[in-house]
Amino acid sequence: MIDTASIPEGPVELRAGSERLARFCREVLAAAGADAASAEAAARAMLHGSRLGVDSHGVRLLPHYAAAIAGGRVNGRPAMRLVREWGAVATLDADDGHGALAAYTAMDHAVRIAEAMGIGAVAITRSSHFGPAGAYALAAAEQGMLGLATCNADSLVRLHDGAARFHGTNPIACAMPVAGEEPWLLDMATSAIPYNRVKLYRSLGRELPEGVASTVAGEDTVDASRAEMLAPLGGAFGYKGAGLAGLAEIFSAVLTGAGLSFELQPMNDPDMSRPRGLGAFVMALRPDAFIEGDKVAARMRRYRDALRASPARPGGRVMAPGDREWDEAHRRDRLGIPLDPDTVAAFRSLAERYAVNLPF
Amino acid sequence: MIDTASIPEGPVELRAGSERLARFCREVLAAAGADAASAEAAARAMLHGSRLGVDSHGVRLLPHYAAAIAGGRVNGRPAMRLVREWGAVATLDADDGHGALAAYTAMDHAVRIAEAMGIGAVAITRSSHFGPAGAYALAAAEQGMLGLATCNADSLVRLHDGAARFHGTNPIACAMPVAGEEPWLLDMATSAIPYNRVKLYRSLGRELPEGVASTVAGEDTVDASRAEMLAPLGGAFGYKGAGLAGLAEIFSAVLTGAGLSFELQPMNDPDMSRPRGLGAFVMALRPDAFIEGDKVAARMRRYRDALRASPARPGGRVMAPGDREWDEAHRRDRLGIPLDPDTVAAFRSLAERYAVNLPF
Repeated sequence: MIDTASIPEGPVELRAGSERLARFCREVLAAAGADAASAEAAARAMLHGSRLGVDSHGVRLLPHYAAAIAGGRVNGRPAMRLVREWGAVATLDADDGHGALAAYTAMDHAVRIAEAMGIGAVAITRSSHFGPAGAYALAAAEQGMLGLATCNADSLVRLHDGAARFHGTNPIACAMPVAGEEPWLLDMATSAIPYNRVKLYRSLGRELPEGVASTVAGEDTVDASRAEMLAPLGGAFGYKGAGLAGLAEIFSAVLTGAGLSFELQPMNDPDMSRPRGLGAFVMALRPDAFIEGDKVAARMRRYRDALRASPARPGGRVMAPGDREWDEAHRRDRLGIPLDPDTVAAFRSLAERYAVNLPF
Repeated sequence: MIDTASIPEGPVELRAGSERLARFCREVLAAAGADAASAEAAARAMLHGSRLGVDSHGVRLLPHYAAAIAGGRVNGRPAMRLVREWGAVATLDADDGHGALAAYTAMDHAVRIAEAMGIGAVAITRSSHFGPAGAYALAAAEQGMLGLATCNADSLVRLHDGAARFHGTNPIACAMPVAGEEPWLLDMATSAIPYNRVKLYRSLGRELPEGVASTVAGEDTVDASRAEMLAPLGGAFGYKGAGLAGLAEIFSAVLTGAGLSFELQPMNDPDMSRPRGLGAFVMALRPDAFIEGDKVAARMRRYRDALRASPARPGGRVMAPGDREWDEAHRRDRLGIPLDPDTVAAFRSLAERYAVNLPF
């Protein structure tokens, strides 16, 4: 299940269709200096977020991406290349290009390796913000593979019993094909909540849930205006969330040579000229690598069906990972993708600056 | 960091040295019908648990394992074999043997594959209870590899918003070598707490923490005597813990063809004659697969050093995954391993039944 914090909680100004939004994203990014592959990959990742309701990683990122490409933080015309390739692994040097292009490219390569070897793993280095991790896990599932994707990010989450930002929200995503249906899809930050929720609650004057954010001294707070850092997933068992963030960190930064969370230039740093040197890691597995594929497909179906049929608490609903997001995607395919006032204003400004037609 | 619930919270009757305990475990298992490899692997895994303070997966399991082997649930003389081997993957048919022998055997094979291919993955099928997942991740790290291990287990944990047992405690473990020091070691159940904690609190009449266990109707309870199932990790964000349990389930049961959590005979079922058909999954990665090994080693050191140096909250202590457990192991190496009264009584009974010398 995707970190659903971003399924629209804020004000919606208007809605737009995903095709028109994708076109707008591509044209703005191209005008800002992106080549076709970069614009296409970034738009695809943003639309993944926007269709599935992960608005924090949806088209809301377009102004940021355009500025990063125009400023030179992100190389709009990268020459991404595999700098190591052996056995069932490879390393992709993303040439400071867009993180979405890097991650889709790496996952496609991991899928090709897995076709031949049963499993394929690709480390990504010299990359940039990649948006929704689930998009890349899903890209593997769309090719019939079990996909895994992770990255680290600039420090925002304290350690268990910690009083300083240490890890990023370091997401872990996994997608598994389900025959004839949409994939099982887990895409979770290893923090207790997403930082966007804190910002939203701050602007709405709402109290945070208990134990998800801390003051500058590391003390728990429900006051969003005093929240300086996030708690790791797990509450009193936050060592588990911190440990999972560490898993993401080891794969994304230690194995790849990319920056550790606390070494990274913050995403929101106003300097848009310096590449951030982000790492990430993707993996693909052939579902039929270990036993016959039809058996795997039948078991996966049985597993998800049983999960959905498991009794719910009064007032609750049991869902499989991804169910809420696929429901939201179908709703948005009908109604259009909701855009908040800030995003609408930013789009108007981008349309004018780059002489691109608005998507609404 | 290991699921530390089991670092001794209960009464300690006496202590015994790990060598003597390992010898006792091997001799009892051999007398119950285990061959040398099975007895050795099971003792090694139990001593991992007992040295590191994970007592729920330590020598406390010996009476259960002896009964399972004597009764035929676990095949004491298995002919484990790789039934598939291609590319960077393999499938181990464990012939209903002891889960520890299966997992060590599978991980050794994954390490050999990873030496040649950069990564190696081995699915385990027709296996049995394997004890502490961290033991097998650690076995990879002891050979210089990043190790991952997971398994599923019989249903004990509700889904997010669920009102019935669905997943097992489905652990995920990862170990990464740190040059010249003990490995970074994460070994976590995907439930909010271990079931043993509930049982212990029930016997002590203590209240559980909020939101970690539910009544038969799926309602949260702090009354250990009313706790019928565990909550998934994450509290209000329990869809993350349930999603991680699903990840373990897909790797351990869907990909391997082994039983899904809700299909498994419970571990505590009195029928000790029927094999449980458990699955598990292990993976090894060469740390120098993606960039130069000395760079990885330096980064891993820097990462763990920075983590340990991160400021703590008042009264708290920041630790890296595994730190608490390695501290406990050093303490137990000096003082001996604490044994609770039930375990001491069971050991006396085993010693008499099998004519084996007690370890204390």
